[in-house]
Amino acid sequence: MADKVTITDVARAAGVSRQTVSNTLNSPEVVREETRRHVLEVIERLGYRANQAARQMRTGRSRLIAIRIDPGGDGISGSVLDRFLHGLTETAAHEGYRVLLYTAADDRAEIATYEDLLGSYKPDAFVLTATHHDDIRTSWLLERGLPFVAFGRPWSHLPDARHPWVDVDGASGTEAATRHLLAAGHRRIGFIGWPSGSGVGDDRRAGWARTFTALGSETGGAGDLDALLRSVEDGIESGESAARDLLRTAAPTALVCASDSLALGALQAARSHEGERPVAVIGFDDTPAATAAGLTSVHQPLAEAAAACVDLLARALENPDAMRSPDAEGSPSEQAHVLLPPSLTIRQSA
Amino acid sequence: MADKVTITDVARAAGVSRQTVSNTLNSPEVVREETRRHVLEVIERLGYRANQAARQMRTGRSRLIAIRIDPGGDGISGSVLDRFLHGLTETAAHEGYRVLLYTAADDRAEIATYEDLLGSYKPDAFVLTATHHDDIRTSWLLERGLPFVAFGRPWSHLPDARHPWVDVDGASGTEAATRHLLAAGHRRIGFIGWPSGSGVGDDRRAGWARTFTALGSETGGAGDLDALLRSVEDGIESGESAARDLLRTAAPTALVCASDSLALGALQAARSHEGERPVAVIGFDDTPAATAAGLTSVHQPLAEAAAACVDLLARALENPDAMRSPDAEGSPSEQAHVLLPPSLTIRQSA
Repeated sequence: MADKVTITDVARAAGVSRQTVSNTLNSPEVVREETRRHVLEVIERLGYRANQAARQMRTGRSRLIAIRIDPGGDGISGSVLDRFLHGLTETAAHEGYRVLLYTAADDRAEIATYEDLLGSYKPDAFVLTATHHDDIRTSWLLERGLPFVAFGRPWSHLPDARHPWVDVDGASGTEAATRHLLAAGHRRIGFIGWPSGSGVGDDRRAGWARTFTALGSETGGAGDLDALLRSVEDGIESGESAARDLLRTAAPTALVCASDSLALGALQAARSHEGERPVAVIGFDDTPAATAAGLTSVHQPLAEAAAACVDLLARALENPDAMRSPDAEGSPSEQAHVLLPPSLTIRQSA
Repeated sequence: MADKVTITDVARAAGVSRQTVSNTLNSPEVVREETRRHVLEVIERLGYRANQAARQMRTGRSRLIAIRIDPGGDGISGSVLDRFLHGLTETAAHEGYRVLLYTAADDRAEIATYEDLLGSYKPDAFVLTATHHDDIRTSWLLERGLPFVAFGRPWSHLPDARHPWVDVDGASGTEAATRHLLAAGHRRIGFIGWPSGSGVGDDRRAGWARTFTALGSETGGAGDLDALLRSVEDGIESGESAARDLLRTAAPTALVCASDSLALGALQAARSHEGERPVAVIGFDDTPAATAAGLTSVHQPLAEAAAACVDLLARALENPDAMRSPDAEGSPSEQAHVLLPPSLTIRQSA
């Protein structure tokens, strides 16, 4: 029964345009509250169902975007991708897309899942997260000309690693954190990051190192770069012990950390450390845990990043040639990408 | 090309059973790492795609579960549903289901979205969150015999509010928190909750009130129930000002709060309060922010709740009669439900 009711029937019965009916379903925030309620009542009364199946048959589009969701971890760093997911689902809805979730234990399992999804729900595009060196997912998708965008830049410079991406400039975030501490009079600024080899971690460390080195002659600090650096696995406990070690051996007056988890641990070490003035600590990601702990932290514009991903995908889907594999046409044109600047959220800790 | 490869082909080429191939895709944790990698390599080499589309044609099932995702809020309380979503996606995958996300501004818009989804992606079932009094979503779904489970019990006792649900026993959580404080010697225990009328909020307040009242003669506290209660909108700032007000007017030595957001505010008020001993504070939800702030908090078993939802849905989908509308067959049988006990995560704050 419901399948016979068209958007035109709804528009006529509600006394509004077809666009208003469409906006009510897909972009409710652009429709006046009163109108929106009225249209929804008519939709419910007539039993209208947007005939996506028929539309899909006609256009060959599923209007689905697939993205992986990971197990929780410590719930601190993971909240970044959760906030990204909220933004993605909302902006995708404005463009008429829904978000399909999947899990995968590693890259190879994720590729098997692409196969599975392509054979079943036929998503129009994928959003990749947690890009890393030698990422076999991106080359697999590129080879097949499948539309995708990565939240995270390609960390390899090989030609087949060129793909559309959106990322936040981590190095500029740790640079801003380091400059903030220099401006407050700190001269011995330590860094607690992750072991070398992760693109994201190396990038965040680089922002601290370059700022510190550039100002080396002025601060007398550049020579101490290695002494002031600790590289550990992510986590509150590892952050705390790295901070204790740094405070004992290198006497920093401030610490920049690659994540809020590390910074929360560093904050505990700082609080139990006896010195003339409290050791300043800055984290990365501006998570709810940072709010709770009064931690100054680098803030990623996640809603903007999600919107930029949807925008790149929508453009790629309108112009499929932009997504063609490098092999098909010789050297690839420069792929679309967006690098967003983070900001510093200043609280009590620094 | 890929559509011609069957699961039997993969099993034969990999030298494993069909079940192992299926497990590799759907329940990788039950397959030995070495076997899993081998099967995934064969899947990739043969270009196998689980032919979900064909299976759907045959079974009439989409194997999609739809759930709403909300804008972030303060990122503290919202993290509860994020963790639930992670658990849901993982356990759904083990049962061969994927999760489809949507957004909706209110109940009416959510119902319009059900129409839209049913006309397009045909989800097999819905998972509802944030159930409340006069929830028009549940009656709408029940009338149409559409399979769903709510994470959150029906807060109305009307017959049409009977539906399958999974929930965490909030009252027993605040009771455990109050008993923990009584055992530590506290006799004046305040409660900061939400305004009356929200089922979840009323339930959490009831656990404190009943424990306090039952022990009233012993503690001399029952008469003070109203004096020790504050009802405010959720948030860190409102929690802080409610706590300041309570500390000034009712002199509690401990505070139980309906959320971690309220408790984080109360913790700030408690820290700046001068007294013989620090005011104890307990929150609700055991969010990452509670970890960061050293806040004792009531912990919800979210992965178990998600698994219970998938289990109820899987059973309902196997036996559709269990989901039939009350009108169709007279009075409805008691619907399946699961009420999970929370636990108390003890940290420095109480």
